[in-house]
Amino acid sequence: MIRPTPDDMSAPYLDEVAGVLERLRSRRPLVHCMTNQVVKNFTANALLAIGAAPAMVEHPGEAAEFAAMADAVLVNLGTLDECQMAAVRAALPSAQKAGKPWVLDPVAVGPLGLRTRFAREILAHRPALIRGNASEIIALAGLAGRGRGVDSGDSADQALDAARQLARLTQGAVLVSGPVDYSTDGRTVIACSNGDSLMTRVTGVGCAQGAVAAACAAVGDTPLQAAAAAAVLMGIAGEQAAAAARRPGSFQVALLDALDAIDGEAVRARGRVSCQLEGRFRT
Amino acid sequence: MIRPTPDDMSAPYLDEVAGVLERLRSRRPLVHCMTNQVVKNFTANALLAIGAAPAMVEHPGEAAEFAAMADAVLVNLGTLDECQMAAVRAALPSAQKAGKPWVLDPVAVGPLGLRTRFAREILAHRPALIRGNASEIIALAGLAGRGRGVDSGDSADQALDAARQLARLTQGAVLVSGPVDYSTDGRTVIACSNGDSLMTRVTGVGCAQGAVAAACAAVGDTPLQAAAAAAVLMGIAGEQAAAAARRPGSFQVALLDALDAIDGEAVRARGRVSCQLEGRFRT
Amino acid sequence: MIRPTPDDMSAPYLDEVAGVLERLRSRRPLVHCMTNQVVKNFTANALLAIGAAPAMVEHPGEAAEFAAMADAVLVNLGTLDECQMAAVRAALPSAQKAGKPWVLDPVAVGPLGLRTRFAREILAHRPALIRGNASEIIALAGLAGRGRGVDSGDSADQALDAARQLARLTQGAVLVSGPVDYSTDGRTVIACSNGDSLMTRVTGVGCAQGAVAAACAAVGDTPLQAAAAAAVLMGIAGEQAAAAARRPGSFQVALLDALDAIDGEAVRARGRVSCQLEGRFRT
Repeated sequence: MIRPTPDDMSAPYLDEVAGVLERLRSRRPLVHCMTNQVVKNFTANALLAIGAAPAMVEHPGEAAEFAAMADAVLVNLGTLDECQMAAVRAALPSAQKAGKPWVLDPVAVGPLGLRTRFAREILAHRPALIRGNASEIIALAGLAGRGRGVDSGDSADQALDAARQLARLTQGAVLVSGPVDYSTDGRTVIACSNGDSLMTRVTGVGCAQGAVAAACAAVGDTPLQAAAAAAVLMGIAGEQAAAAARRPGSFQVALLDALDAIDGEAVRARGRVSCQLEGRFRT
Repeated sequence: MIRPTPDDMSAPYLDEVAGVLERLRSRRPLVHCMTNQVVKNFTANALLAIGAAPAMVEHPGEAAEFAAMADAVLVNLGTLDECQMAAVRAALPSAQKAGKPWVLDPVAVGPLGLRTRFAREILAHRPALIRGNASEIIALAGLAGRGRGVDSGDSADQALDAARQLARLTQGAVLVSGPVDYSTDGRTVIACSNGDSLMTRVTGVGCAQGAVAAACAAVGDTPLQAAAAAAVLMGIAGEQAAAAARRPGSFQVALLDALDAIDGEAVRARGRVSCQLEGRFRT
Repeated sequence: MIRPTPDDMSAPYLDEVAGVLERLRSRRPLVHCMTNQVVKNFTANALLAIGAAPAMVEHPGEAAEFAAMADAVLVNLGTLDECQMAAVRAALPSAQKAGKPWVLDPVAVGPLGLRTRFAREILAHRPALIRGNASEIIALAGLAGRGRGVDSGDSADQALDAARQLARLTQGAVLVSGPVDYSTDGRTVIACSNGDSLMTRVTGVGCAQGAVAAACAAVGDTPLQAAAAAAVLMGIAGEQAAAAARRPGSFQVALLDALDAIDGEAVRARGRVSCQLEGRFRT
């Protein structure tokens, strides 16, 4: 759908990503993470590696207070429980009031009724960014997905319509992850083909992308820029890690090292993005 | 107690383990994990590495729904809390009704009253497989163990009677882990002497064995076969990892790499199993 | 404030640390950890690596029972929730009654009201040791800190007064972590300058120091000795890890390896401590 952009056309996008990365390192945004139990450690380390400051606060009595202090908020529904639901319900109005962007990662929305209803409920608080695989994005938009847990049964291509719909509804951006990651604000679509299949062999890589997206949202000019930056940064880091380690245990370690090592030069040299503007290809 | 089986006698068992591994990789069973907070990340990565698909769902309002969708369920009591208890009570009847096997890992049962009672309560839902160290198996069977937390104060040999009792009670299999791992269905006992002492220097290796056992139960012909497969696969991976890394941090990483790398050839070449049939040695 | 102690003067302190390490390895104290969700795995592995036995038990119905069985208790408030609060309230009187030392790690106390009140509440149970960064120690003492989440906005030097106050109040020791770690019992101050800046790029290193401090408190002669031992052991391990790995992913792995590898010889050769006795420098 999205044809490759010639190198000279993708350069401005990669310059923007490099700019986001620079601001991550200089401003060190504090990301309030309400994320799942499986990935808290890896998420915190991914944020530290890319240059942000993570903090996990999920007590309903602290979440509102902390969301207003933080620079961005991440809500990942992977291991949703009553305590997290209460904390999220407290945090989002506070983040909204304080003008802090928040990111929704609707893990396993679709096959499971409770979290699907909860995800739709909190859409009212207008996430700056939604990050999910194709099934999750389709399910969240109210279309019929075929997901089973954290895997995606639908191609990212098919999810683009759902993503555009959601982005228009929230007036934010949607990042659909897959072999190619698509970021859209409902009109423009930026496709990023960086990444490696090993990223699906380690738990929490997608969740870390959502966390990095929250950090980027704290320093980005627009949600779309933040979404594309998260896709490019994680994708390049994944490729660098896969060049260093071909098995999942050592790949997980190498991915954190690669997030730490990535710089603007690597973004410009290795980023692979294409762009479609309101239905017309830019190239 | 269990004398070594000559190589030519253990070959059929190792062929079965290799078959289970092949089916893990081709069918990629979805394992619904309700496990402890310490090991969720490592458990998910161990399942991914061996070829299965992990998903952690512990909301009481989702657990029943998800247990029926999954191919197997893991219940590990390491950090039991009220929320997990409610989720387990919802999930097990659902798994049972849907004909999905479930595995019980009764961590620290014995010294702690609440979880000991809870473990005995859920035995009524007939786990396909129980995996624990000697103290835990003895305590679960109602005999007097000497455990202190996650360590085992009783030898696996002494726990064999308790294991046989439990296996007959549940009509499933019991895997007693230790320097030698014993798997029994109440009659046959399969001993596996693969493994390395470094496996006790990293948290969650035993818990990962329970998770792998759940994945094996989803694709195995019998609970006993699944138990023996989990013992052999983790044991060989542990040996391979110890050959690559002699300190616990790097061993943990190498163990995931080894679970990813293991194949039927390694199982047949390196597996060390013996078998005792109803009180008579097979050899 | 604390001037360097000439090598010949620091030798007795390092001998004491080496003695604590030896007892850790021979007695293998069981540490009951009630710690945050982000670092449970790393904390357990750090304790195993240094020679202790970790166990995470947070059910309010088990915490009192287990605190009395354990050799020391760790309370880390990083991801405080209602369940943990109930468990801590059950465990501390039990630990106190059984004469077991406990360690308080007041993560993010100061900016967040609920946990600040809770931390002050449980001070009544007299922790043997409090470990925190400068902001947390200042806030806990009731002075005005400038912390934002887990970072420290105040220098460790400025926190020394607060640390002395707290140590006198609890009749225990306080460890203020930072570029230089200060341990005090309210009179003597032991400064340790071991460590590496990479320790701040990985989540849970400070939390692991608190856990190691709890293990040391179980075998140390005094809380002050335990605090200084935790500072020296983690600091040297951090330096050794940084010599092996310059990126955060591999540094985290190397740190566990280094905690496993450290011995009395390394403590004596590499430890850098200074001591101030009641306002007068010892040198």
